[in-house]
Amino acid sequence: MTAKFVYFFGGGSAEGKGTDKQLLGGKGVNLAEMTNVGLPVPPGFTITTEVCNLYYKNNLKYPDGVADQVKEHIIRLENLLGRKFGDPLKPLLVSVRSGAAVSMPGMMDTILNLGLNSQTVDSLAKETGNRRFALDSYRRFIQMFGDVAMGVPHKMFEIALDHRKEQAAKRLGLEEAKDTDLNEEELAALVQDYKRIYQKEKGSAFPEDPYIQLWGAINAVFGSWNNPRAITYRRLNDIQGLLGTAVNVQSMVFGNMGNASATGVCFTRDPSSGENIFYGEYLINAQGEDVVAGIRTPQQITLHGSRTWAKNNGVLEENRKKEFPSMEETMPEVYRELVDIRNRLEKHFKEMQDMEFTIQNGQLFMLQTRTGKRTAFAEIRIAVEMVEEGLIDEKTAVKRVNPNNLPSLLAPIFDGGELTKAIQEGRVLTTGLNAGPGAAAGKIAFTAEKAVEMAKKGEKVLLVRVETSPEDIEGMHISQGILTARGGMTSHAAVVARGMNKACVAGAGELKIQEEKGILSVKGQEFHEGDWLSIDGFTGKIFAGKITTQPSEIEQVFINGTMPLTQSKLASQYARLMGWADSFRKLKVRTNADTPHDSAVAVKYGAEGIGLCRTEHMFFAPDRILAMREMILAGTESDRRHALDKLLPFQREDFIGIFKAMEGKPVTIRLLDPPLHEFLPHDEKNQTEVAKSLGITSDEIKNKVEELNEFNPMLGHRGCRLGISYPEITEMQTRAIIEAACAIQKSGKQILPEIMVPLVGNVKELIHQKAVIMKTAEIVLKEQGVQLDFLVGTMIEVPRAAITADKIAEVAEFFSFGTNDLTQMGCGFSRDDSGRFLPMYVEQGIYEKDPFVALDQEGVGEFVRIGTTRGRTTKPNLKIGICGEHGGEPSSVEFCHRIGLDYVSCSPYRVPVARLAAAQASLR
Amino acid sequence: MTAKFVYFFGGGSAEGKGTDKQLLGGKGVNLAEMTNVGLPVPPGFTITTEVCNLYYKNNLKYPDGVADQVKEHIIRLENLLGRKFGDPLKPLLVSVRSGAAVSMPGMMDTILNLGLNSQTVDSLAKETGNRRFALDSYRRFIQMFGDVAMGVPHKMFEIALDHRKEQAAKRLGLEEAKDTDLNEEELAALVQDYKRIYQKEKGSAFPEDPYIQLWGAINAVFGSWNNPRAITYRRLNDIQGLLGTAVNVQSMVFGNMGNASATGVCFTRDPSSGENIFYGEYLINAQGEDVVAGIRTPQQITLHGSRTWAKNNGVLEENRKKEFPSMEETMPEVYRELVDIRNRLEKHFKEMQDMEFTIQNGQLFMLQTRTGKRTAFAEIRIAVEMVEEGLIDEKTAVKRVNPNNLPSLLAPIFDGGELTKAIQEGRVLTTGLNAGPGAAAGKIAFTAEKAVEMAKKGEKVLLVRVETSPEDIEGMHISQGILTARGGMTSHAAVVARGMNKACVAGAGELKIQEEKGILSVKGQEFHEGDWLSIDGFTGKIFAGKITTQPSEIEQVFINGTMPLTQSKLASQYARLMGWADSFRKLKVRTNADTPHDSAVAVKYGAEGIGLCRTEHMFFAPDRILAMREMILAGTESDRRHALDKLLPFQREDFIGIFKAMEGKPVTIRLLDPPLHEFLPHDEKNQTEVAKSLGITSDEIKNKVEELNEFNPMLGHRGCRLGISYPEITEMQTRAIIEAACAIQKSGKQILPEIMVPLVGNVKELIHQKAVIMKTAEIVLKEQGVQLDFLVGTMIEVPRAAITADKIAEVAEFFSFGTNDLTQMGCGFSRDDSGRFLPMYVEQGIYEKDPFVALDQEGVGEFVRIGTTRGRTTKPNLKIGICGEHGGEPSSVEFCHRIGLDYVSCSPYRVPVARLAAAQASLR
Repeated sequence: MTAKFVYFFGGGSAEGKGTDKQLLGGKGVNLAEMTNVGLPVPPGFTITTEVCNLYYKNNLKYPDGVADQVKEHIIRLENLLGRKFGDPLKPLLVSVRSGAAVSMPGMMDTILNLGLNSQTVDSLAKETGNRRFALDSYRRFIQMFGDVAMGVPHKMFEIALDHRKEQAAKRLGLEEAKDTDLNEEELAALVQDYKRIYQKEKGSAFPEDPYIQLWGAINAVFGSWNNPRAITYRRLNDIQGLLGTAVNVQSMVFGNMGNASATGVCFTRDPSSGENIFYGEYLINAQGEDVVAGIRTPQQITLHGSRTWAKNNGVLEENRKKEFPSMEETMPEVYRELVDIRNRLEKHFKEMQDMEFTIQNGQLFMLQTRTGKRTAFAEIRIAVEMVEEGLIDEKTAVKRVNPNNLPSLLAPIFDGGELTKAIQEGRVLTTGLNAGPGAAAGKIAFTAEKAVEMAKKGEKVLLVRVETSPEDIEGMHISQGILTARGGMTSHAAVVARGMNKACVAGAGELKIQEEKGILSVKGQEFHEGDWLSIDGFTGKIFAGKITTQPSEIEQVFINGTMPLTQSKLASQYARLMGWADSFRKLKVRTNADTPHDSAVAVKYGAEGIGLCRTEHMFFAPDRILAMREMILAGTESDRRHALDKLLPFQREDFIGIFKAMEGKPVTIRLLDPPLHEFLPHDEKNQTEVAKSLGITSDEIKNKVEELNEFNPMLGHRGCRLGISYPEITEMQTRAIIEAACAIQKSGKQILPEIMVPLVGNVKELIHQKAVIMKTAEIVLKEQGVQLDFLVGTMIEVPRAAITADKIAEVAEFFSFGTNDLTQMGCGFSRDDSGRFLPMYVEQGIYEKDPFVALDQEGVGEFVRIGTTRGRTTKPNLKIGICGEHGGEPSSVEFCHRIGLDYVSCSPYRVPVARLAAAQASLR
Repeated sequence: MTAKFVYFFGGGSAEGKGTDKQLLGGKGVNLAEMTNVGLPVPPGFTITTEVCNLYYKNNLKYPDGVADQVKEHIIRLENLLGRKFGDPLKPLLVSVRSGAAVSMPGMMDTILNLGLNSQTVDSLAKETGNRRFALDSYRRFIQMFGDVAMGVPHKMFEIALDHRKEQAAKRLGLEEAKDTDLNEEELAALVQDYKRIYQKEKGSAFPEDPYIQLWGAINAVFGSWNNPRAITYRRLNDIQGLLGTAVNVQSMVFGNMGNASATGVCFTRDPSSGENIFYGEYLINAQGEDVVAGIRTPQQITLHGSRTWAKNNGVLEENRKKEFPSMEETMPEVYRELVDIRNRLEKHFKEMQDMEFTIQNGQLFMLQTRTGKRTAFAEIRIAVEMVEEGLIDEKTAVKRVNPNNLPSLLAPIFDGGELTKAIQEGRVLTTGLNAGPGAAAGKIAFTAEKAVEMAKKGEKVLLVRVETSPEDIEGMHISQGILTARGGMTSHAAVVARGMNKACVAGAGELKIQEEKGILSVKGQEFHEGDWLSIDGFTGKIFAGKITTQPSEIEQVFINGTMPLTQSKLASQYARLMGWADSFRKLKVRTNADTPHDSAVAVKYGAEGIGLCRTEHMFFAPDRILAMREMILAGTESDRRHALDKLLPFQREDFIGIFKAMEGKPVTIRLLDPPLHEFLPHDEKNQTEVAKSLGITSDEIKNKVEELNEFNPMLGHRGCRLGISYPEITEMQTRAIIEAACAIQKSGKQILPEIMVPLVGNVKELIHQKAVIMKTAEIVLKEQGVQLDFLVGTMIEVPRAAITADKIAEVAEFFSFGTNDLTQMGCGFSRDDSGRFLPMYVEQGIYEKDPFVALDQEGVGEFVRIGTTRGRTTKPNLKIGICGEHGGEPSSVEFCHRIGLDYVSCSPYRVPVARLAAAQASLR
């Protein structure tokens, strides 16, 4: 007895079922599933992946029985449909598609209309009453089969087509003709051209026998499993353990067989708003391609939808009824059947579906159903409402929302009225990449310096640059949004903007920017510095002039408190969903915040503490920088201490403010980290000014700047190396932290300061700094007469620290992985320089994602894993978190959950992302 | 029954033995051992480390029985010596010393002359016939006991002493008096001063009772075990598992009791030449301090030595006999006894000994014997000759020679006659640190640029700088030697000079160097650019003028072939020893060499292949750099290929030369590694010149330099990132390598090229580059019609590569750990910037040694270990080496042996070091 190699679907049931994915592939199992659910699916069969496996094992020979089983199933298909391969009256036409268990670019995709030959093309013409269509289908089949299955160079068909199009252009008096301009005669001639090409290239005539066509297609699918692109794809994506691909052979249906035929796409709910109404479009006497091509205006499926559409497009009800009637009106029976299918599918999949259907002579066929794409707003509404409807449980709802979509919900939006007006007025200039969600409007600044200058005057600024670089950070920070002409979704501008939660449109190639001249030109229009421009980071659209923006409803409700919760459906659905998420997650979520304001915002977004408070940012404020510079320029310890004494009250007040905002929560404060030269002025003008303020010569400053200059500042004199060189800095910072905590405690509130020593690579560094901290803390606590709980721990950001974490854990009371620096040192990439090669690396698949965006789990993640394991070997309950920017990136959050970290920490606006991602990780 | 807490030694035998180190401590076990060997050791006893342990465990109380046992042993000592504690005629005087199993600074050291009081001081005066000595001994005892044992501030004794010295100065009419100027009266008064100080500070009189003195001293020793310095020392040096310190109480002997008394130091062989003759010095009627103080000229022990000394110092035989007679002449019986002891000790320890002895009234006492320090020349001679004498075996001989001493044997030396003359003429200017062994003479250059300029004219240059920095490398390279005014043994100059095997004297603080003015002044003398100066890197001495240098005998014999082997005892002993070493070692030793010349030298020093051939050095030569720059400035791939075509023949010829020198051996060639901007001129003048040569504007070059400028070049666009950006570079280099190998093979010789891809962090990078290499190689081999074995592997120098080595090993055919970069990235230190903190780190013990000199085994070594383990999990026989500069550092070589690497690779002059270190590792 031979094995079963072929599985049938059709006639109300399928031999395969939903769990057979390994054997039938993704597409095959989906067709079987739809059939089993009772959908009217065009019947067909699947040749299993097992066949592919044996084919390769057996030196490119099929196992015994496959040929017979395929033949049997063709006959079964013929009998079911009352059609026959090659039949001059009712020919059977099929599609042939590949389909492995994992979707895989590089393999052969689709051959349609297999079964057409010089006779059956006439039958198709008769059946559809459309000879042009039949000929076009035939020439497409010859091309697909010749090119994809038989390796005839694509180019040759293109040349022949171009030749016929020139002919058509001449006939029509056009400069250039489109495919659709070819008439029946030209198409018939093209079919002959194609056949000649095939004959010449393959040395034999294009096959008339559908069985020969079928086996050619099947061979091509199995052959494509091991073509170089597919092999590379599997290797790069680490896809292992698959048997091979399956082959799906399915009967063709046509929506263009006359006015009782149609084709369409529909969603079980509105994919834009998420509202629970049936939504879709259809076209009578048309094929799927016609809907996509946009030549005819698709009509609405429901009467309600049709009327709304007419209203929005200024179409009178009379005309609507005549020209654009809904399917509910034109094909009420089929419509009812479709509504019924819609209801059944949502019940079955418990998820919003995106369906494709074709109506052939009044008979409805479902070609596909899949989870429907939707906007971020629809996503959350559908998830929450499906729980309310009892369709799914809360866990499922939490899993359904993509955490990366949450920032879109928090970002500012354009005023609806003004936006519509701008579009109507034709103020859309061009479209770039929607690199950072949110709406922004501001006056153009072409340099970061100018942006800062304008912002200081209180102006709203839009930073417009060819591309941004690290020096632009300050300018990006104070701008409303960022617009660049060059760069992709992972360009510097895009990455930084998303990190700052700024609206960003990147890579708008049509913009011509002359930064030095201060001119932006686009399609003949010119804009200058100070002119208003608006950008839509959701869509990538760029508008001339100003469009008023407003905060998102969620921000208005939860952060600003300017809108009551009851007034916003979005905000209350968001709150429900996040509540569920919080109840499922195990990972705590903290925030990276350096100011009382950021801390307060983060708490409102659900932060459970501060994971990284960077003290150095505090030194840059105008009232502190001078004392900081005095400290750096000091020649002796006593001069240094004198300057530090001036900084102490500032630091203490900053910490008091942050501690108040974080009442009762842990606050991790990192001691001074950056190299000291970052605090000194680097240009002559500023050096002179600062020298004057400090009463020294500008040469002294210049010399110090030169003395502190480093070849590789990333690997230089920074982090705890500063605190070890100048313990008095650590003393001052410890004093500020402990005095602030004492003040909070005296006011009857609680706080848990966690003092974090940066850039430790060797436990002895931590021993040194911990001794300084403990001694200082002891003195301060005695002075203040206070008992205080606080921890001393370290960043794990130097690779050496990760692999000697067992030793470091003997001294550290907590770890926080600084995955930014760990990526830089672990992978040997300077973040600021990696723009020269990292985009290429991501493009070539050397790194799947930019490792500064999503944690490189195989490499940097391995450091985190080793560090965690070794640290907890020494201290099983060691508190461990992550405070790199990865803390707000879902796949990285899942990794942190999986290896058992206690918390992640991210920027305030990413806190909801991390909360949701942590919940999903916990549910997986 | 109580335990045994006290162990006696004396009267011909000891209760302890050589294996009791844990219990008796290092000093105690040494005294027992000498006693047991039959040496006349002043008797005494050791209180065990167990007592120390119990003392601390028991809350600072001694276990029962200790007091009784100490008393019993004092009585035993009294009986043996016929002396008594506090006896007015024959008082027993003892020393008390600490001594743990590991030598440990920070603990109490020594109290001498314990037992002296107001009565016994007179007895000592009578017995020695030297009242001044007795009083001086007493006041020293009071001070030591008061300060060290009882915590009286040292300062107070100093003030009293200064006061009495002023008195003596007045008496002698001197401006300032020395300790030795104090007469009996002044010393007697000082004793009273000291006693008053003690009374005031401690509130009780200085103890007269020797038992009270003894217990005070014992308490002090045990107390010092846990003082902060000792605790810190143990923590920093990771000393664990010790019980505590022992206390050694030993009877005093005196060499100053008249003309039948003496004291001296001797060696079983000549510590300078290593010759097997008895060598030593003594002084009649003197104490050890007198020998050290250098007030009297010590006399030789042997008659032979005495005569040689007299000849060298121009002393007539008559005067010698009268004024400086040998001990062989003055004390023939004691001399014979000493010779006998010398012979017994060498037989017993099978090692050259350094002995201290005292003769008290004609009776010889051995105070110490230990392995004697010797010069590098003596070390090798003693080791080889002891084998020839049958005293030790070859393995022991190999273990006896410090590999770090070998470079001294290979370094150039001064012409002996000229050196003596220079010393006699008083041309020694000052002395600095002997930072790089070897003699050098050259004309002064104060900048690296000037040095290069002078060297180009064929002049011998000595680079003289306040301190060197990475930009000076080229200037250092062409100089004969390097002299700096600032910096220690691990300063940039010192480290780089040793790496280049250049003579270097560093940190000569008396030099005043004004680089910009071109003036060097020292002790009133001035030198200018172009003046001759000579430096002795063995001793640190700096000489005015030129002293001719000559290559070492080993270089003359083995490298230059200018001296026959038979003529050099050193060279033949060196050859024997290295032969033995080679027979014991398992680790292979390769070299880092970029030129045929270096390769040839390395082979002569025993290199078994090239572990690192840096191809970029080849591009810097004047005839190539232009094509290299053209390549970098190329705007298109085809322009780049055009420039690469010009470079190809150069590279191929270089490889042919290297392959010839390395015939039959493996040669690992690293593909282009440094960032491209290193090849471009950075100053305006050169930019203009180069622009002219290339026929472009200097702005084009300037723009390119700016474009290529990086924030952290160490972590930038370099290594395989270049080869992935510009595969044509990899193609050209592969072609050059394979074509060169084909040429060698066609000439009937063998070579194994190993192509090494640098800076791989992710296996996909290696996959990419290996594909380019294999494709190119296939083409070339087809063109050449040759079959060739070659390997493709990778540097493991990025931390990520080490921890993902299992994946990388799937593609790599060998690994070579680049521990320089691995240290930089693993520890987060930029080598060029680490001067600001690393010296401090080493000083504070954060890193035991500079991790760029000796592999940081705990951290960077752990990367190497993980990388090796994971790599061999995938490929059990993976060939693995190390090619950082650590490959020539003994402790690092031992580490490489221990974790099972196949080879180390180091600079040609370090090859012998690595061979010997590898043998020692294998024997350990």
